[in-house]
Amino acid sequence: MDDRTQLPIVGMIGGGQLARMTHQAAIALGQSLRVLAASPDDSAAVVANDVRIGDHDDPTALAEFAAGCEVVTFDHEHVPQERIHELLRAGHVVRPGPEALRFAQDKLAMRRRLAELDLPMPRWAPVDGADDLTKFGLPCVVKTATGGYDGKGVFMVDDPARIAPMLADGVRLLAEERVPLVRELAVQIARSPSGETRVYPVVETVQRDGICTEVIAPAPDLSAERNAEAARIAERVAVELDVTGILAVELFDTGDRLLINELAMRPHNSGHWTIEGTVTSQFEQHLRAVLDYPLGEVAMTAPVVVMANVLGGEPGGPRLDERVQRLLADDPAARVHLYGKAVRPGRKIGHVTIAGDDVDGLRKRARHAAAVLRDGS
Amino acid sequence: MDDRTQLPIVGMIGGGQLARMTHQAAIALGQSLRVLAASPDDSAAVVANDVRIGDHDDPTALAEFAAGCEVVTFDHEHVPQERIHELLRAGHVVRPGPEALRFAQDKLAMRRRLAELDLPMPRWAPVDGADDLTKFGLPCVVKTATGGYDGKGVFMVDDPARIAPMLADGVRLLAEERVPLVRELAVQIARSPSGETRVYPVVETVQRDGICTEVIAPAPDLSAERNAEAARIAERVAVELDVTGILAVELFDTGDRLLINELAMRPHNSGHWTIEGTVTSQFEQHLRAVLDYPLGEVAMTAPVVVMANVLGGEPGGPRLDERVQRLLADDPAARVHLYGKAVRPGRKIGHVTIAGDDVDGLRKRARHAAAVLRDGS
Repeated sequence: MDDRTQLPIVGMIGGGQLARMTHQAAIALGQSLRVLAASPDDSAAVVANDVRIGDHDDPTALAEFAAGCEVVTFDHEHVPQERIHELLRAGHVVRPGPEALRFAQDKLAMRRRLAELDLPMPRWAPVDGADDLTKFGLPCVVKTATGGYDGKGVFMVDDPARIAPMLADGVRLLAEERVPLVRELAVQIARSPSGETRVYPVVETVQRDGICTEVIAPAPDLSAERNAEAARIAERVAVELDVTGILAVELFDTGDRLLINELAMRPHNSGHWTIEGTVTSQFEQHLRAVLDYPLGEVAMTAPVVVMANVLGGEPGGPRLDERVQRLLADDPAARVHLYGKAVRPGRKIGHVTIAGDDVDGLRKRARHAAAVLRDGS
Repeated sequence: MDDRTQLPIVGMIGGGQLARMTHQAAIALGQSLRVLAASPDDSAAVVANDVRIGDHDDPTALAEFAAGCEVVTFDHEHVPQERIHELLRAGHVVRPGPEALRFAQDKLAMRRRLAELDLPMPRWAPVDGADDLTKFGLPCVVKTATGGYDGKGVFMVDDPARIAPMLADGVRLLAEERVPLVRELAVQIARSPSGETRVYPVVETVQRDGICTEVIAPAPDLSAERNAEAARIAERVAVELDVTGILAVELFDTGDRLLINELAMRPHNSGHWTIEGTVTSQFEQHLRAVLDYPLGEVAMTAPVVVMANVLGGEPGGPRLDERVQRLLADDPAARVHLYGKAVRPGRKIGHVTIAGDDVDGLRKRARHAAAVLRDGS
């Protein structure tokens, strides 16, 4: 491969399923995804060729990893700001940049910034003492400012005493009003350093115990105005926070309005359906955006697409291989994505996508598929 | 990863673009594709994790490679029969098996077998001397029985003297009548060891200088009868030759009837469009078939899908990275697949797929996309 035909190397910090699926997209684009994984058993590390094993908080590992990468991006939000600034000082390109990423890493910073922008969100307040919890009535929602994911770091609190141990430990917390919501939505936008943006169709996300279990695209019965509102919010957040790559905005739909719940600045679970469901998947789009390539078409390839997450089941039951075969026999049109991860109860180990035109039928099939993969049932 | 959640390892001999794209499909199925590549720079070797470097004719390399594979399959037809039988004797599962594969490796054997089955094909004869060339009138088509691909090993001969050197070298040849054809078609079928089959939509293939440049799915204006005839031929060949995995049947459409041109027993260039164009791509389907998993739905995801091959251009012109960006800007809905191969003029280095409903428009766009990727024009 000579210099003139060499395509850029994108480095992704983190070896989870997002890196795994981004690697699939990178293969098509002729690129080599370089993965910094914590362990050789990580989801992406077992399928990618250019894998470096190292800690995302280790300056030496990061420097060695970044050498030769056209751009460095992320599979998760856990890289400390200081590490990212070191990469920048060494001349590397990092997208999204630390100023943007901070708002996906720190919920207090995010809420403050969105407040400055006057963007719609639940009422919130930093928690300095147990008294702060009573502002919005109890129960209220308490979140750790950093480190949360998949429902972790989020608590429904009706007794202020419950958070005392965290406050004593110096954990930074915020409280939010418990919003009476009709459903949850998500919207993804891709934005390139040149400023090009593409907004994906707004989806409905279904959660159980704080974990997303199902995504329906497009969000059923969403009015044109509400759709435009979601797109406007995504566009405004992406531009004002100077996000590059994929931004996912999780929204509460209260029936009357949309409120921003969370932000993620990377490919996101609410966009896995785009692999089959849109012309350009979120994974390819993320690569294109962080490389400052022209962005791809985001039109849907079918009227309705439903994705169901496969969560790890209890030990026992049929072997995973047998479960896969059972599902493929049950539903020859189910699109299976398994992440090669060790199974733990409740852990996301894969997802299934089904396209068609009948929302209810597709949801049934997707839920069935996920259940068969979970425990063979 | 414990034993109960371990998914099978499929070994693919050969590290070309077919292995590369099969690897993408294997990632989704949670499988680990193991690749036996001739060089660490091979198309699949640069993107897969489990890569062994070795010669496909080296018994030791093959034995080490096959150890631990649930099934061994192929990216090309070049593995000698003797090597495959050694793998079988050592207890490995090889699909397609050597008896079937022989008919994709040896065109004389293939023509003899199809003749026994009374399947339609051009008139043909083995060539033992220059005299045999006059049987069907000149010019006629002369093919080497083994070793040909992409137009190599196929000659349009009008002077029998031309083949004398090959005969002197002991090259096994066959002659075929030059069929007056309207166009070329191809049909793919997947068949599992359990006997399940799925026939993909019949496509039209467009060749230039013996190399496929474009594939149109479904084949435009193909009558229902002709469609059924192609499917019947594919099914009969797959069953009678006991093919497992993907079988591609290249056909001549004479206007009056279909004649079998070539067979391939692996994912095939005429099926690259299925990555985006059908519910289950030929690559995933090949994996499912050789693993004896239930086969996937082969319905199309759009009314028309066109694929154009990207051939290596002359040296010079814009860098490949710049060409990619140009194309992505020109056509945000083009689906790019680059193979990570060194560019040589005329060599297949990638393909582009475009889906929609207007055949002529899609063909123009696909040809434009391939031209931009070739030389930036």
